[in-house]
Amino acid sequence: MKHLLLIGIGPGNPRQITLEAIDSLNRADVFFVLDKGAAKDDLLRLRKELLERHVTRPYRLVQVEDPQRDAAAADYVGAVEDWHRQRAALYGRLLHDELAEGQCGAFLLWGEPTLYDSTLRILERVAQPAFSLEVIPGISSVQALAAAHRIALNRIGEPLHILPGRRLADESGIDNVVVMLDGQCAFAELDDPHLHIYWGAYLGTADELLIEGPLMQVKAQILAQREQARARKGWIMDTYLLRRR
Amino acid sequence: MKHLLLIGIGPGNPRQITLEAIDSLNRADVFFVLDKGAAKDDLLRLRKELLERHVTRPYRLVQVEDPQRDAAAADYVGAVEDWHRQRAALYGRLLHDELAEGQCGAFLLWGEPTLYDSTLRILERVAQPAFSLEVIPGISSVQALAAAHRIALNRIGEPLHILPGRRLADESGIDNVVVMLDGQCAFAELDDPHLHIYWGAYLGTADELLIEGPLMQVKAQILAQREQARARKGWIMDTYLLRRR
Repeated sequence: MKHLLLIGIGPGNPRQITLEAIDSLNRADVFFVLDKGAAKDDLLRLRKELLERHVTRPYRLVQVEDPQRDAAAADYVGAVEDWHRQRAALYGRLLHDELAEGQCGAFLLWGEPTLYDSTLRILERVAQPAFSLEVIPGISSVQALAAAHRIALNRIGEPLHILPGRRLADESGIDNVVVMLDGQCAFAELDDPHLHIYWGAYLGTADELLIEGPLMQVKAQILAQREQARARKGWIMDTYLLRRR
Repeated sequence: MKHLLLIGIGPGNPRQITLEAIDSLNRADVFFVLDKGAAKDDLLRLRKELLERHVTRPYRLVQVEDPQRDAAAADYVGAVEDWHRQRAALYGRLLHDELAEGQCGAFLLWGEPTLYDSTLRILERVAQPAFSLEVIPGISSVQALAAAHRIALNRIGEPLHILPGRRLADESGIDNVVVMLDGQCAFAELDDPHLHIYWGAYLGTADELLIEGPLMQVKAQILAQREQARARKGWIMDTYLLRRR
């Protein structure tokens, strides 16, 4: 049997990794790194540093370009389905070609492997070869955001909603919402004077940016800083919490 | 200035602690441990083991009985408010009496300090003495639940709701919901044949219990196992995800 580890390595701060994750790094024979786009080189370098610092046994690193999703497709769910199918085929080939029977492979995943990360779901589609699977939790960017702003994610006895940017417009009566994966800056479309925003980018890294305040007052500042940082680094990862006052 | 660290130490597995949390343990002069009820001795022992394993400098441990909330009060929000006021007075006294100027104190918090933990909010009410505050994220029981069941917390492009048990009945059209702090077993009141439940107790510890299946089929089994475990250990901590199929 082949064995696979999905290891959450935290949001970007190399100290925000658990002992369990480090134990797991030291069980892997092969590391699969599947980045894409502009962030690829930066993220690969951070992962390599992590391995150099913590892994005490020989390993192999397999780097593959992840297929890109057709972001322009009108049918979002269909485009994601199609993209997942392509990735499942790729992951199946990797498991077949790059991992021997009895070996242990690992995916190094930013943040938390079970929260808005598709690797687990894509591996569910891989019928061959057979493999067993283990998930190692990691600190998510949501937690890094709350810690950096020193705020509780939920209010007393109240729900917390976490959703991707493209679902923000559907959210009726935004009360206490964390938004992830919002490349389109959906927050900028809101003009509710009672909303407060806690925003963060590159959380946990040396490039970390934090802005908080009444949404209507700080919206323009976030958009400007976001665009400036994205232009400088070539990529951006950000997340935010919206809270009704 | 006095300094305070709120350190997330994970859900109970001593390997599910981050390097950042271990660094932080080694900055504290005083550890505040405020347990209550039946879980007190078990949880204190686990914390002491963590300190013995990781802290390499002298420290003092201050153990205090946390005030109990009036669980029978008809006015839930009022009872919580009252309880928080009592705890704020207690925390203020602790900071005043047990921490000298320039010293660093730490609260060791199970799971994630910003998710359904009231310490941060109670410290906001402490006006005197002045102190600075830092939050160190930890793996939450929600993450341990998803990892143990090897499931993604969210479905593709869809929202995730996290809420306390007493809010489950208010949730219109349960779709994908994580429930925490459900001492009353609110899931048992549901009779929707399309719901699937992923349940876990004592997550990350040697006593971990996991059950998953269609809610209507496994509900009785969860209630029975939960009651048996609670009777044997004297306390229980559990959480679950409900998902519409």
